[in-house]
Amino acid sequence: MPPQRATLLQVAQRAGVSRSTASFVLAGRHADMRISEDARQRVLRAAQELDYRPNLMARSLRTKVTRTVALVSDTLASDPYAGAAIHGSLAAAVAHGHLLFIGETEGNPLVEEKLISDFLDRQVDAFIYASMFTRYVRLPRLLRDRPVVLLNCLTRAAPAHHAFIPDEHEAGVTAARTLLDAGHRGGIHLVGNASERVFAARERLAGIGSAGARLAAPIECEWWPESAYEAVSRALRDGLAPRALICLNDRIALGAYQALRAAGRTIPDEVSVISFDDSDLAAWLRPQLTSISLPHYQLGWQAVEALLGPASEPAVHRLPMPVRLRASIGKAPFE
Amino acid sequence: MPPQRATLLQVAQRAGVSRSTASFVLAGRHADMRISEDARQRVLRAAQELDYRPNLMARSLRTKVTRTVALVSDTLASDPYAGAAIHGSLAAAVAHGHLLFIGETEGNPLVEEKLISDFLDRQVDAFIYASMFTRYVRLPRLLRDRPVVLLNCLTRAAPAHHAFIPDEHEAGVTAARTLLDAGHRGGIHLVGNASERVFAARERLAGIGSAGARLAAPIECEWWPESAYEAVSRALRDGLAPRALICLNDRIALGAYQALRAAGRTIPDEVSVISFDDSDLAAWLRPQLTSISLPHYQLGWQAVEALLGPASEPAVHRLPMPVRLRASIGKAPFE
Repeated sequence: MPPQRATLLQVAQRAGVSRSTASFVLAGRHADMRISEDARQRVLRAAQELDYRPNLMARSLRTKVTRTVALVSDTLASDPYAGAAIHGSLAAAVAHGHLLFIGETEGNPLVEEKLISDFLDRQVDAFIYASMFTRYVRLPRLLRDRPVVLLNCLTRAAPAHHAFIPDEHEAGVTAARTLLDAGHRGGIHLVGNASERVFAARERLAGIGSAGARLAAPIECEWWPESAYEAVSRALRDGLAPRALICLNDRIALGAYQALRAAGRTIPDEVSVISFDDSDLAAWLRPQLTSISLPHYQLGWQAVEALLGPASEPAVHRLPMPVRLRASIGKAPFE
Repeated sequence: MPPQRATLLQVAQRAGVSRSTASFVLAGRHADMRISEDARQRVLRAAQELDYRPNLMARSLRTKVTRTVALVSDTLASDPYAGAAIHGSLAAAVAHGHLLFIGETEGNPLVEEKLISDFLDRQVDAFIYASMFTRYVRLPRLLRDRPVVLLNCLTRAAPAHHAFIPDEHEAGVTAARTLLDAGHRGGIHLVGNASERVFAARERLAGIGSAGARLAAPIECEWWPESAYEAVSRALRDGLAPRALICLNDRIALGAYQALRAAGRTIPDEVSVISFDDSDLAAWLRPQLTSISLPHYQLGWQAVEALLGPASEPAVHRLPMPVRLRASIGKAPFE
């Protein structure tokens, strides 16, 4: 059983003052309430001796502030990126003297409504509405008129709340420029699922195009190493001689590495590889993989800053995705 | 600004009943309080129309129950295992109708004390005290007399609380038996940091020994691919001809794979590899890596079950670490 919490009345009795005197002292109002220094010292000593802790929940009934934030996400597990976004959110919340609830909806609107209601029952001050993958969302009705910030998602309507997403378009520009700077002009293939339905893929492709890189036929695969291994292996067997691969994430790059090695093609001398994510994996591959960072820690941190810091006009914020240059890009041969 | 919460008084006024009648109806006590069906219907309708939500925090001042759990961890970021433990804890908490706070101490006792105090100020019902790596801990003084469960850590003293850790000793037995079953008797090397100070390494080594596997000289390295790559490469250059490698985690196995491949040794025909973690990486390597699972989701789930479920005698629970057989272990040649 938890130890019984000392009450304000017990502090007052031990100090030999009234409950309201004790209350004024502990609220720092001894001066305007003309409380003697002697009484003040007795109250403070009694509070210390009894390990008195002001009841924040009782106080919150008056102030309506619990100094808590809830992070409501579709999914939290399975991916280190989610971890980085939570970590950034947590760090910023703590910096603002807030504690962080987390909850997961599995993308189910009924679970979401129940979860948000449960948080409202605990009088959470503010919400982070987060998505695992960058995408358009509809903000739940229960959240619309509350302090809320969108993390890794945005609404199609004009922003009524701050939204923080990675700048995927600029990341595409960066990928293209990195290859163009190394002299690559042809034989550049995208590896991945270039579906129009995937926000990141769509924006990256547009960025690559706007930077003036011309792509050869894409090598279509899912977002996993084995799928990429099979797709790249098949393309090489069919006679493809790529000069450079733009892989849509580091896992795809791992599969591409495995397929190139199995076919006896060397990285970066024969084939250059660039990727997106800059996960741990990128630094573990041999040669180390040049990859464009997903700024998930920064997304979490800045989202909470916007939520708990000074108010500002709602906007969509696209955070930079810097390239981490490693050893997987070679100079294009003279033609 | 959040919409103003409807009060019980407003519900009562709209329904044309007294505040206490409304309260009894909403608490389901219309029968024992002899409230007419007509009044009951009016109260329920008014509550619905006003989107009335019982003030759980006001109620908690009476019942002392907030239905919240706090997960206090040394670190939460950077590792997918932490994510799995949090996810398991969250799922079990929600199954018990509780919400989950998370907080991080960075292993700093002052941060830890402040964080726990902040949770106590919000009258959290129960605590999960978690560690990133399995280890012995001292439970913070503030938590000792409260409902608390230890996740991935344990105390040296007789358990005053439930503690959930992976069964690392049995995992060592499993690793040894898997190799013995494939006929391996010699040329088995541990790859990793076999320091007595690391709980998991110490227990696994003891398990390997107790299963009757004799290890040749260990290949010492840190817990990262590059360190393992260099250590295994050096050992091979020095003339080592290993038959089997027991890698202390999947990252080390990745480095070992890279070193074996660079030296022209094939897996599993010439060298068998077994590892611990069963992370995503194990399934991504070629050949796929046989690895022994860390049960972090289960640790989280079962810890919270013990915390919020029926009370039982405190104990240390060692959760099974099953082997996931894949393609990295070959039969030993006849000698």
